[in-house]
Amino acid sequence: MYVPKSYKRLKRGPQVILPKDIGFIIAYTGISKNSLCVDAGTGSGWLAVSLARICRKVVSYDIRADFLKIAEKNKAIEGLDNLELKNCDFTKSVKERDADLVTLDMPNAEKALRNASKALKPGGYVVGYLPQMEQVKKFVKKLDKAGFCNRMVYEVIARDMLVRDEGMRPSTKGVWHTAYLAFAEKKQEQ
Amino acid sequence: MYVPKSYKRLKRGPQVILPKDIGFIIAYTGISKNSLCVDAGTGSGWLAVSLARICRKVVSYDIRADFLKIAEKNKAIEGLDNLELKNCDFTKSVKERDADLVTLDMPNAEKALRNASKALKPGGYVVGYLPQMEQVKKFVKKLDKAGFCNRMVYEVIARDMLVRDEGMRPSTKGVWHTAYLAFAEKKQEQ
Amino acid sequence: MYVPKSYKRLKRGPQVILPKDIGFIIAYTGISKNSLCVDAGTGSGWLAVSLARICRKVVSYDIRADFLKIAEKNKAIEGLDNLELKNCDFTKSVKERDADLVTLDMPNAEKALRNASKALKPGGYVVGYLPQMEQVKKFVKKLDKAGFCNRMVYEVIARDMLVRDEGMRPSTKGVWHTAYLAFAEKKQEQ
Amino acid sequence: MYVPKSYKRLKRGPQVILPKDIGFIIAYTGISKNSLCVDAGTGSGWLAVSLARICRKVVSYDIRADFLKIAEKNKAIEGLDNLELKNCDFTKSVKERDADLVTLDMPNAEKALRNASKALKPGGYVVGYLPQMEQVKKFVKKLDKAGFCNRMVYEVIARDMLVRDEGMRPSTKGVWHTAYLAFAEKKQEQ
Repeated sequence: MYVPKSYKRLKRGPQVILPKDIGFIIAYTGISKNSLCVDAGTGSGWLAVSLARICRKVVSYDIRADFLKIAEKNKAIEGLDNLELKNCDFTKSVKERDADLVTLDMPNAEKALRNASKALKPGGYVVGYLPQMEQVKKFVKKLDKAGFCNRMVYEVIARDMLVRDEGMRPSTKGVWHTAYLAFAEKKQEQ
Repeated sequence: MYVPKSYKRLKRGPQVILPKDIGFIIAYTGISKNSLCVDAGTGSGWLAVSLARICRKVVSYDIRADFLKIAEKNKAIEGLDNLELKNCDFTKSVKERDADLVTLDMPNAEKALRNASKALKPGGYVVGYLPQMEQVKKFVKKLDKAGFCNRMVYEVIARDMLVRDEGMRPSTKGVWHTAYLAFAEKKQEQ
Repeated sequence: MYVPKSYKRLKRGPQVILPKDIGFIIAYTGISKNSLCVDAGTGSGWLAVSLARICRKVVSYDIRADFLKIAEKNKAIEGLDNLELKNCDFTKSVKERDADLVTLDMPNAEKALRNASKALKPGGYVVGYLPQMEQVKKFVKKLDKAGFCNRMVYEVIARDMLVRDEGMRPSTKGVWHTAYLAFAEKKQEQ
Repeated sequence: MYVPKSYKRLKRGPQVILPKDIGFIIAYTGISKNSLCVDAGTGSGWLAVSLARICRKVVSYDIRADFLKIAEKNKAIEGLDNLELKNCDFTKSVKERDADLVTLDMPNAEKALRNASKALKPGGYVVGYLPQMEQVKKFVKKLDKAGFCNRMVYEVIARDMLVRDEGMRPSTKGVWHTAYLAFAEKKQEQ
């Protein structure tokens, strides 16, 4: 997939989250300049960097120090001093509170839901980036117990259109699938 | 299409731009807290409000005073003092300069390209929200003359997935098409 | 979804298989005027009727006598004397042998794989019409044990395009999902 | 795109029509063992061969003798004596009458509509295989004058699903677009 210049200048290590999915997360959750976001795991940091361009503060967790080195480079490229990178296991502990958004891109994202709930303010969003259907099922199953409601699951497809003198049509080939995006809100206190 | 709470609280008058398209515009153009955006026409103001949540300053033009009243309400709901609404014809005149993004949602968007170029800084993005393929063709044809390069056209599809005890599958019905999104960058000075 | 006239004249009782899926089954399996097809369950008989228009002989099984009455009407409407409708449980017994295609549209299609294999000639196709992803997984898991190979799973999407004086674009809304189609070939004797 | 064995054994010269589109044409038009089909242009003959597997008689026109040689090979591979290949320009003359289906896969398909109408019986279908949106527009514009009604235009998308131990999900990449399929019926005599 074509990558726009605000991403092309970034380093790529592990599999990145693409702008089509990043944009959907931003728009759907309505995060803003006042928002605090927590991101786990960082990977190459494309999502963390994108959130930090927009939000007040982003804290991103990864257990892999080598991935965080790539993310550090991307943070420097973008000159973002509101992005904090932590070499910690988010499923074990989280210090942040009253976050507006927690994003989870990790193999067993459902194991991070308890800490996501801890970090979020009531009404805040958790988003799971989940490549496989089975991951979606496991994630969704745990949402209720972990204190989340109003779940929605989407797959975002960006179709590249060719517009040329000989005619307009969708591109012959393209990226079909990256991951499902599962959204839920932390329940309001009762 | 399901509309998340950050949009559900907004008023709807004329046809709105949906979060799936708003998110793609935000992520693709890489706009940030430092960005100045110009938006024409405002309509119900969903895009203008979404940009203002994120950016330093948004100026939105519409020739219809009745639409701007709806947008004013949405601005108030969101409490956004960095959103300026102008009852002017953007194709006739534009005061803003060095903008990072100009978004165009109007019947003959190609007629606004000259002023879009005036308003943008070199490397800034123009985005046309264009429901019909003929509009895309007209828009794209004028880009070069108006001083734009690196054009890309996308259609963004958000597939709603059902995840229930009886099984997981895509929703039976859904929104297939809203509009094509045509992106181009203002050429760097030579 | 728009239904063409060769289907509009047919009766509809239980959920029917749509032409988009019927056509994919026909083309993908390469069935012809010489083919014997076995179909279970019949439902309203749209698939059975479509296969009988094309093939030498079609035998269709259903445990529901009320469904078969609808299918009998559709058989009469089309004047097809090569379509045999059987009020039997296909998972319990099957008399046909050397079939070119067995189609399965039933809640636990994987339970019919043993009899599908019995009915098919080596190299013949079984096709499961499976609305949910969990059904696909169960079906696929049993294929190897039941003597099948070369599995492929598809989802067929037919996008309706509007072509009008005011412009061309995809329809705003449409049918997103009916079912997954799982194909496999009966292994050649060794 | 994966090609099933009933096509893999065929020769490929010029761009072929894929099973996903062939199946949709067959199902949508409801052609059967009693049908006469006329096909122009032949190309590699995949569509002609597929129709001949199913129908009483297929006549396929191409102006390119080299393409017809490939189609002749495919006819021989399939042993189809009901497929007639003609090295003629279909837009200039057509001998067949009372056909059930005319398929058009050629650069200016709208120029073949007059002869398509001549060849068809009332209620018979013409189908244009049209890669570009502009071709669809030209084709549709001529339908009414050429005596056709009940037009429908589709794009058929076949999504390949991966079903593995590690999980189920759509394939990462795939074929997005081949061509639009434009259908219309010859008007009934009045």
